[in-house]
Amino acid sequence: MPLLQPSALSMVPFVSVDHMMKTVLAIGIEETLKGIADYIEEDFKRWSLFDKTPRIASHSQEGVIELMPTSDGEVYGFKYVNGHPKNMKTGLQTVTAFGMLANVDTGYPVLLSEMTVLTALRTAAMSALAAKYLAPENATTMAVIGNGAQAEFQTLAFRVITGIDTVRLYDIDPAATEKCVRNLAGKIDNIVRCSTPEEAVEGAEIITTCTADKQYATILTDNMVGSGVHINAVGGDCPGKTELHKDILGRSEIFVEYPPQTRIEGEIQQLPEDHPVTELWQVMTGDAKGRQDARQITLFDSVGFAIEDFSALRYIRDQLHKTGCFQDLDLVADPDDPRDLFGMVMRAQQAMEKAS
Amino acid sequence: MPLLQPSALSMVPFVSVDHMMKTVLAIGIEETLKGIADYIEEDFKRWSLFDKTPRIASHSQEGVIELMPTSDGEVYGFKYVNGHPKNMKTGLQTVTAFGMLANVDTGYPVLLSEMTVLTALRTAAMSALAAKYLAPENATTMAVIGNGAQAEFQTLAFRVITGIDTVRLYDIDPAATEKCVRNLAGKIDNIVRCSTPEEAVEGAEIITTCTADKQYATILTDNMVGSGVHINAVGGDCPGKTELHKDILGRSEIFVEYPPQTRIEGEIQQLPEDHPVTELWQVMTGDAKGRQDARQITLFDSVGFAIEDFSALRYIRDQLHKTGCFQDLDLVADPDDPRDLFGMVMRAQQAMEKAS
Repeated sequence: MPLLQPSALSMVPFVSVDHMMKTVLAIGIEETLKGIADYIEEDFKRWSLFDKTPRIASHSQEGVIELMPTSDGEVYGFKYVNGHPKNMKTGLQTVTAFGMLANVDTGYPVLLSEMTVLTALRTAAMSALAAKYLAPENATTMAVIGNGAQAEFQTLAFRVITGIDTVRLYDIDPAATEKCVRNLAGKIDNIVRCSTPEEAVEGAEIITTCTADKQYATILTDNMVGSGVHINAVGGDCPGKTELHKDILGRSEIFVEYPPQTRIEGEIQQLPEDHPVTELWQVMTGDAKGRQDARQITLFDSVGFAIEDFSALRYIRDQLHKTGCFQDLDLVADPDDPRDLFGMVMRAQQAMEKAS
Repeated sequence: MPLLQPSALSMVPFVSVDHMMKTVLAIGIEETLKGIADYIEEDFKRWSLFDKTPRIASHSQEGVIELMPTSDGEVYGFKYVNGHPKNMKTGLQTVTAFGMLANVDTGYPVLLSEMTVLTALRTAAMSALAAKYLAPENATTMAVIGNGAQAEFQTLAFRVITGIDTVRLYDIDPAATEKCVRNLAGKIDNIVRCSTPEEAVEGAEIITTCTADKQYATILTDNMVGSGVHINAVGGDCPGKTELHKDILGRSEIFVEYPPQTRIEGEIQQLPEDHPVTELWQVMTGDAKGRQDARQITLFDSVGFAIEDFSALRYIRDQLHKTGCFQDLDLVADPDDPRDLFGMVMRAQQAMEKAS
């Protein structure tokens, strides 16, 4: 029993992991991915409205903890997210996250949500949305190199948003590929297990790399990438962590979310600071060109930007009253007289004394 | 009913406003203030261990929303806090806040807590802790100018930490003073209502200013401040918001929390960038001097720094299992196989289908 009855003003809807899964399952995973992609597209098209800042990172030997804030002038949002590659060895998630939205005019929180599941969804939705503008027309086959936590979400997002029907899976650990095959069974027409990265990219118009090692790696070498391919590079997302050989970058038209962040964290950290890149939002608004011909190699150098999390949280907020999947948290102190915070504590004391 | 039974790993203790009040009341307000001050002192004495960064602010016409992160290398913490002076007019709090602690080695959250009440407590605890090093010996009387949400907390913190027995209250709005008198009745020996700021500072060895207007103001003019006084300036805490006349600053020995932040936000934003100030943590470790004689004017130019919130959250975390005042939130996704986030959602679907 609360000592004082909290007012409606003090209550903030909270979406737990369980409620997030219930939301996604009630709507359907593919429908959710599509919905989030629509919200991201809407927000990218009004890019100039947003407060943009590179994430604020706190690095340690084992990993990184980051805050990713943004605001469109009406709604403020941020995400807390960690990246700890070694966690997996002790049975923990590499990435966990939560986030919130607040009203800019009052500063009052309006949503608090788990974002481990939601980040997986928004990352996949962002990838497929970028590919809608960049992948070759009528692409049907995607290679997925790295079959960890992102792989199935990526596959389903590309299925529902770009229309692929075939996925070619490769992981350095065959057990990861088996997990993926199991999870995707019945969800996409053709699933092909591959035993080398070279085999995986055979015939693929789209290549997604989503490996997790926190070091410079070369998942794709130059000879593996033929003309006309779209590369969706998801795993290179922090300083010192890349997946592509530098020569591929030289042959590709490179598209990014937010250059000041991508130049530090993305594949292009391997390139000079002034190497030309195109901002994806400009492709969406028509201010820049996406894919220009069938032979071009396009590369989405994805690192994940705060606006995508903002869009994903907006999407979830808009589902709350359809699904009812949330609980109210008594997060904001709301004294009757806003100057009388102390008096609120005193009244709570009286209530406690009465009760005992 | 959760679809899958969340594991202990996925649960994060959450302290709501109600639980925060229950915690404070179970321990006692003064005891809590003292406890938080002890934790702040402990952390200030190991200052060099901390990641320090000025807060990350998002300004709008109506106010500001800020994130204040820090880490001691083992524990990471941050606070979300807003400041919206106009909120009061619509019955909302000017400042609301929440925060969290996480394990640096894993990135997993270990505490989520309301911080509206907790920030009020830590601000008062910080003020009184600074005064322990800076106020004249055996000070018994404090003037409190500005009788809003901070006033009672300040008074009790100074009573329990520095030993004052008399408070002289002034506010531009007499109703605020009356509220304060009511709340403090029986909690301190002498309470004096004053009808001007000049009357309030009469005979006071400590002057606390905690007004809320978001603009340059002159709560204290030069002639009001005699020798030997300690000024605790709490209300000047963001760009454009100050309370003291510049001439007072010239006559004072100035102590601050974190110079890069205080030079932007504190009273000293009125001074040249190189005006000498002393860092409070150095006074606590003995690396710098506090008050040097009975005639000196000392000024604590308080803006509130991330480490203080960190200390306050640490204090609350350490009370959790004594008071039991928290609830577990299912905030972290914890699949059996950390690479199999998608599989977790699938198992949830099976559970949902079985249940229906």
